[in-house]
Amino acid sequence: MTRRALNYRDYLRLDRLLACQAPVSGRGGPAAPDELLFIIVHQAYELWFKQILFELGVVQAEVAAPVVDDRAMGGIVHRLGRIAEIQGLLLRQLDVLATMTPLDFLEFRDRLFPASGAQSLQFRLIETRLGLRAADRVGLAARPPAAGLGAADRRVLRRAEAEPSLCDRVEAWLERTPFVETGGYAFRDSYRQAVRDMLERDAAVMRAGKSGRGVDLAALEAARRHFDALFDEAAHAALVAAGQWRFSARALQAALFINLYRDEPALQLPFRLLSLLMDIDENLTAWRYRHALLVQRMIGLKVGTGGSSGHDYLRQTADRHRVFKDLFALSTFLIPRSRLPALPAKLRRAMGYRYAEGGR
Amino acid sequence: MTRRALNYRDYLRLDRLLACQAPVSGRGGPAAPDELLFIIVHQAYELWFKQILFELGVVQAEVAAPVVDDRAMGGIVHRLGRIAEIQGLLLRQLDVLATMTPLDFLEFRDRLFPASGAQSLQFRLIETRLGLRAADRVGLAARPPAAGLGAADRRVLRRAEAEPSLCDRVEAWLERTPFVETGGYAFRDSYRQAVRDMLERDAAVMRAGKSGRGVDLAALEAARRHFDALFDEAAHAALVAAGQWRFSARALQAALFINLYRDEPALQLPFRLLSLLMDIDENLTAWRYRHALLVQRMIGLKVGTGGSSGHDYLRQTADRHRVFKDLFALSTFLIPRSRLPALPAKLRRAMGYRYAEGGR
Amino acid sequence: MTRRALNYRDYLRLDRLLACQAPVSGRGGPAAPDELLFIIVHQAYELWFKQILFELGVVQAEVAAPVVDDRAMGGIVHRLGRIAEIQGLLLRQLDVLATMTPLDFLEFRDRLFPASGAQSLQFRLIETRLGLRAADRVGLAARPPAAGLGAADRRVLRRAEAEPSLCDRVEAWLERTPFVETGGYAFRDSYRQAVRDMLERDAAVMRAGKSGRGVDLAALEAARRHFDALFDEAAHAALVAAGQWRFSARALQAALFINLYRDEPALQLPFRLLSLLMDIDENLTAWRYRHALLVQRMIGLKVGTGGSSGHDYLRQTADRHRVFKDLFALSTFLIPRSRLPALPAKLRRAMGYRYAEGGR
Amino acid sequence: MTRRALNYRDYLRLDRLLACQAPVSGRGGPAAPDELLFIIVHQAYELWFKQILFELGVVQAEVAAPVVDDRAMGGIVHRLGRIAEIQGLLLRQLDVLATMTPLDFLEFRDRLFPASGAQSLQFRLIETRLGLRAADRVGLAARPPAAGLGAADRRVLRRAEAEPSLCDRVEAWLERTPFVETGGYAFRDSYRQAVRDMLERDAAVMRAGKSGRGVDLAALEAARRHFDALFDEAAHAALVAAGQWRFSARALQAALFINLYRDEPALQLPFRLLSLLMDIDENLTAWRYRHALLVQRMIGLKVGTGGSSGHDYLRQTADRHRVFKDLFALSTFLIPRSRLPALPAKLRRAMGYRYAEGGR
Repeated sequence: MTRRALNYRDYLRLDRLLACQAPVSGRGGPAAPDELLFIIVHQAYELWFKQILFELGVVQAEVAAPVVDDRAMGGIVHRLGRIAEIQGLLLRQLDVLATMTPLDFLEFRDRLFPASGAQSLQFRLIETRLGLRAADRVGLAARPPAAGLGAADRRVLRRAEAEPSLCDRVEAWLERTPFVETGGYAFRDSYRQAVRDMLERDAAVMRAGKSGRGVDLAALEAARRHFDALFDEAAHAALVAAGQWRFSARALQAALFINLYRDEPALQLPFRLLSLLMDIDENLTAWRYRHALLVQRMIGLKVGTGGSSGHDYLRQTADRHRVFKDLFALSTFLIPRSRLPALPAKLRRAMGYRYAEGGR
Repeated sequence: MTRRALNYRDYLRLDRLLACQAPVSGRGGPAAPDELLFIIVHQAYELWFKQILFELGVVQAEVAAPVVDDRAMGGIVHRLGRIAEIQGLLLRQLDVLATMTPLDFLEFRDRLFPASGAQSLQFRLIETRLGLRAADRVGLAARPPAAGLGAADRRVLRRAEAEPSLCDRVEAWLERTPFVETGGYAFRDSYRQAVRDMLERDAAVMRAGKSGRGVDLAALEAARRHFDALFDEAAHAALVAAGQWRFSARALQAALFINLYRDEPALQLPFRLLSLLMDIDENLTAWRYRHALLVQRMIGLKVGTGGSSGHDYLRQTADRHRVFKDLFALSTFLIPRSRLPALPAKLRRAMGYRYAEGGR
Repeated sequence: MTRRALNYRDYLRLDRLLACQAPVSGRGGPAAPDELLFIIVHQAYELWFKQILFELGVVQAEVAAPVVDDRAMGGIVHRLGRIAEIQGLLLRQLDVLATMTPLDFLEFRDRLFPASGAQSLQFRLIETRLGLRAADRVGLAARPPAAGLGAADRRVLRRAEAEPSLCDRVEAWLERTPFVETGGYAFRDSYRQAVRDMLERDAAVMRAGKSGRGVDLAALEAARRHFDALFDEAAHAALVAAGQWRFSARALQAALFINLYRDEPALQLPFRLLSLLMDIDENLTAWRYRHALLVQRMIGLKVGTGGSSGHDYLRQTADRHRVFKDLFALSTFLIPRSRLPALPAKLRRAMGYRYAEGGR
Repeated sequence: MTRRALNYRDYLRLDRLLACQAPVSGRGGPAAPDELLFIIVHQAYELWFKQILFELGVVQAEVAAPVVDDRAMGGIVHRLGRIAEIQGLLLRQLDVLATMTPLDFLEFRDRLFPASGAQSLQFRLIETRLGLRAADRVGLAARPPAAGLGAADRRVLRRAEAEPSLCDRVEAWLERTPFVETGGYAFRDSYRQAVRDMLERDAAVMRAGKSGRGVDLAALEAARRHFDALFDEAAHAALVAAGQWRFSARALQAALFINLYRDEPALQLPFRLLSLLMDIDENLTAWRYRHALLVQRMIGLKVGTGGSSGHDYLRQTADRHRVFKDLFALSTFLIPRSRLPALPAKLRRAMGYRYAEGGR
């Protein structure tokens, strides 16, 4: 018995795929020529969401391993890079949607009620699996039933919320970083001293009145307190409770270490991983913001089709649905390479390849 | 005497242009390899700002004419389209700047103090000439001396602020639109009635309880009040005072008319003009927002090199430095084409070409 | 009886849409994690192809009207602009596909045989409906059965080939342009004289030896012959037969007229229409070329899954499947605005709006 | 004595930078409003070329080290990634240039003669330092004096041509890869056998007639010959002489090894390095092609301002000025991961980190 030769149309299920566009306009009313565009844009979004969820799934599984295999790091970084690339495409897709004018949208907008983009399960899943917690959500996003999310979808969402997110996995992975206190080397102490020296030098310059920046002494003092909290369990816990930090102090220290010593072979890909998490956070945020602008352009001051307050709600989520803010805030605590304490030779060696004495 | 043959290098003044990059790092300290990128990104921005200001100048002059020549409309729309295209490039340039990591920025960041992007005269001029008023500016942008803008630059800025902006010119041009009340046709009355009918129909459906959307009756009532204010001098003035509208009622009506009847030959390019003003506003806003994210990534919680509060300040300007919000809000008051009152034949004819009875 | 409330999932047929991804890897063999990406990229392409075909259909119908309604021009230009915008997205999608490495493709490539992108009916239909004729196609594209296109698809394709393409419609529309010989004004004569004068001036400068460009006299002579052929039926027919021109002389003259006098109100949108046809041609060409590079990267020197010779074949189509080359070539025959013969006042008036003596 | 406070304007040399735009139109003739755009686009290109050359310089120096420090690999890959990102911007810049219409270009085009983009020294230097040899250049690019490149520029170019290019450095670095024959493991033999087995299996299926792909037996045989040449000095030399390969057999084998075993920690960044070289080659090629299309649109069939044959010449360079074709061709010789011979445990260990038995 022979397998039937595969062809393009069957392989891609084109007969089904291209039958999934079912405009509501035109049924017992005038056709709205731009509704097809509206449908196809959203379907393309959902296809890409599926791909992002798939990539996230692979990455989550890899990072969840008790010990992340070094051989896996290249693949993890590759997949995160792909997610960022897809996000670039999704941002561009808004430009295509923007070719629909408000007047053309109006031709079929009322027929869509109460369907709404807030009902996209996959979009919520992406947020959740990245690390957005139910309690972080604002406005309509915080109330799935109000947003019109069906019971089955809500169950799927709750299950995803109950599982460790990528953010959780990354935090645990950071906490396991073997280098920060390895080999008798105390990154904490060495680094804290370097920062204190730097701040002291800056303060001395200011006190000498050479910069006319008297006002900055207060900022310097605040920076010092911030630094200290990073190494003080109680102070850190207070900041977590206040929503200022999410990651544990241990994880933040590891992330700092990776940022500062990223040139060591064993830290090069971990550094890219952290950078890509910021890229992904930034891309999602930029998409939300641009989407909010587009919605305002489409519907003005009106409420969205799902009953949300439209533009304002969406703009809020841009700022408040971010997941990896901690990584952005860490930049505050970087110090120039030239002031970095040198790593103990043994530690540096441990972060190199075994073959390294030979080499190319 | 013959003119010396032009060559590429001289034509573009490359010897001077490529000598304008003068890193501060490396002079009495270690070189910071990424400072060149930092300089070139900003210089490329300034080159493009110059181009945008040039295009704005041409457009402002054309729109300022007592009667905007119909032959000029194609050119105006073309130039606005070019500005939007350049903005797309400027947004992309942030991706290039983002390849500089916070640690690499730190190598030379302190040496830049107190220079700051807030001192870009050309960027402020673009905002001002689009229509941002001194009083609209927030934070540091509102205090040019504090922002470090020199006396000469402040004079140039004040002069630009004293002149009619593109926004002013467009408002006046809209007010001159000959169609809105031409030929005995009263767009106001006809349109208001159509909107009232639409709202009445919607309310009837709701009252009949068929939609279960009881809550929306309040929204309907609010929408009706909004519509009415658009045609009531006093109510409109109150909204202007409250910062809800910027354009005059006359100009807003004309903009609505153009949006609604944009298929008439004489309105096709005016419609594109209004759309492009929204594109430009949106692009500038998106750039500001994305820039704010990037700054947060670079410096974390620190203040900017110019002493501004960094990320938060920049994010604020994204929302509050917008100029053409009125055009976005107008979408609230559009009605579907199918409910548009037909234009009087004479008016429609006036908006067509003279040759039109012949034709292609 | 009440209509069930619409929701997002049902509206977009997500249950079906998201069930259309059926990787062949993993069935009786190891799963290839990147096959999902491969499928989704191609499905996204097909969704967008459907949208492009829809927009083309609307435009073709509008341009086919015996007299293209001036009220329709804004819409036609808008839709062509949307197609160009979608093409920008499709180009960007290649960057996403490029995140699949050759080694990852290899995991499932053999299982796809003999399915091939050359079997995309919708892509061929886009080409055909734009104006690519069966005889223009090169390589595998010229032999649909060899390319694996099924009998039903071939019938659909043949039917599309039998109908007037957008290129045909545009040619006929250009031929109907009422201005070129309207009102006793002979664009032909006036313009030809201007060109002859220009060439004569250039030749005089050269003969005077001031430029040292002796070699260019031959080029000048060739340009003159080219110009003349444009106005000589027999010479033009010979060039058509030689594949140098596709449009009739009448249509080419009209396109030139539109390019040269595009500031006249009645020509502003026709000019944009011609520009957009070039954008679309250029975007499709750029996509083909970039796709060819990507295929070479993926499979090296091998043949494609459909048995085509891969990269070389695809690169050939980039150059030879272009449809609107004539419009690009016309740039050869433009003359500076300053040397344009003034249009007769009556003709200029005919190309303005009826209301125009009033104005804004 | 105190250092004067730095400000934005001085830091960026804005007074000079913004005085470098000197249109030729308008001097003793009508101003051409689009000439400023033309100048600024090209100046922005030159700024970015300077940045690319800087990055290339850093990368070339790092790769030139007798032993490339593993700590440097992250930085090398980062800089190549930045070059690719800048290229993405340069591609986008063509869209901005394309907003200049042919008629607007014509207003000042003749005044530019004989200046030409072919005279851009920095563009040629980029090509040369990537690895384009003088003998590889086609058309005008092959004759710098004819292209109008001045004597000083030609000297700079010749000097660059005399130095090892990035391509040369990468080849040498590949040849030094310690893994390919390390530790008694013979990648050659092991891999060749795997390939032979694969081809044999394929041939057996075909002979059994199950696929109906009789014609492919010839292709299989050709592929086998290709494989063999890769491991046969004389056969390889013949292919180099025929211009089919550029890299040595040793370097090609190392590149293959890196592609196939890229998951090993020590190969993850080398794999990204090779991928980025392909990205850069592809981006440059795509830019050249798109530029050729744009030139055709601007000037039609005419010669370029520098006397080049315009579009055709530029299109030729797109295909023939590529530098890293070898890396693309290598895809031909990849085999699926599942058929890869396992590496000896000792070799795998050598390519891991020293710390690896501990881990995260």
